Amino acid sequence: MSRWEPNARGRLEQAALDLYGERGFEQTTVAEIAQRAGLTERTFFRYFADKREVLFSGAGTLQEMLVNTVASAPDSAAPIDAVAAALEAAGTLFQERREYSLRRQSVIAAHAELEERELIKLASLASALADTLRRRGVKDPAASLTAEAGIAVFKVAFERWVDETNQRDLPQLIRESLDELKAVTAGK
Amino acid sequence: MSRWEPNARGRLEQAALDLYGERGFEQTTVAEIAQRAGLTERTFFRYFADKREVLFSGAGTLQEMLVNTVASAPDSAAPIDAVAAALEAAGTLFQERREYSLRRQSVIAAHAELEERELIKLASLASALADTLRRRGVKDPAASLTAEAGIAVFKVAFERWVDETNQRDLPQLIRESLDELKAVTAGK
Repeated sequence: MSRWEPNARGRLEQAALDLYGERGFEQTTVAEIAQRAGLTERTFFRYFADKREVLFSGAGTLQEMLVNTVASAPDSAAPIDAVAAALEAAGTLFQERREYSLRRQSVIAAHAELEERELIKLASLASALADTLRRRGVKDPAASLTAEAGIAVFKVAFERWVDETNQRDLPQLIRESLDELKAVTAGK
Repeated sequence: MSRWEPNARGRLEQAALDLYGERGFEQTTVAEIAQRAGLTERTFFRYFADKREVLFSGAGTLQEMLVNTVASAPDSAAPIDAVAAALEAAGTLFQERREYSLRRQSVIAAHAELEERELIKLASLASALADTLRRRGVKDPAASLTAEAGIAVFKVAFERWVDETNQRDLPQLIRESLDELKAVTAGK
């Protein structure tokens, strides 16, 4: 029997990120994360498969949000515009959690294994977006290419955002990167 | 002391792919691959870290070839055209080894772990292409976006090529996918 723990997921995520920052990812154990969050290991494993997955638990929510935004775009919207709207909406969410995103990113950037996990999540997002476009009647290869182009824009904008010293926000960087992609593919 | 084995690398690659097809990737051991190739395990490990890497040993050659082609494009070439020329040249090489590529792909598609490895290799290619474009004076984010767009085109064209029933060749599918990317980013 387990009692309900208010916001256990969020507390575990925060505790994990704090410890990864203080001690390093390898040196941190699940027991320590649970203790820091004031919870048990058993509770940890109800939410996450392992200490790596704590860093990627937002991927499901992000995918759902991108897919729903694309699916609910007006029928008249060009595929790239439906995808751009979804990416900007996601960008707004990241922007609201900028501090958390930056700290998470610095842990990931320090570990090849975590960077690989991030790439795999991005590829899954591209695949989910392409499926959603197909359900809107977009043919292949346009569906795959639009989805891959969208994820490329997101990836590059995100890298600029976490590096950026000039404080432009992520939705703006996404719009700029999409404009730049249009320019480079046009051979400019 | 080891004697020289003619084309040991190629024989090991071929033996590995044969065995992965016959028995499955998991069920095949390095000892069996070496035996099938008429070589020793010791020779295997001179060329490959493990049985997974046999499938990815071409990645270094591919990267070198893409980077060299982009680096030697005329100064007047638009970045996307330099990248497209490199991808088409790579496409020609794959086309010449179509049978091998198709068999390799069917092994990879059956194993999430191998598909992940493939994604990571593609991300490394994008990163190497972006670096090469920067050395040609292309600024960011144009360099990153051109490289990511190029890899997206290659990925989608490759997926069509291995699926394709109509026998179009890979360089042609790469050109078509790039044209399609131009159309979708323009909002068509």
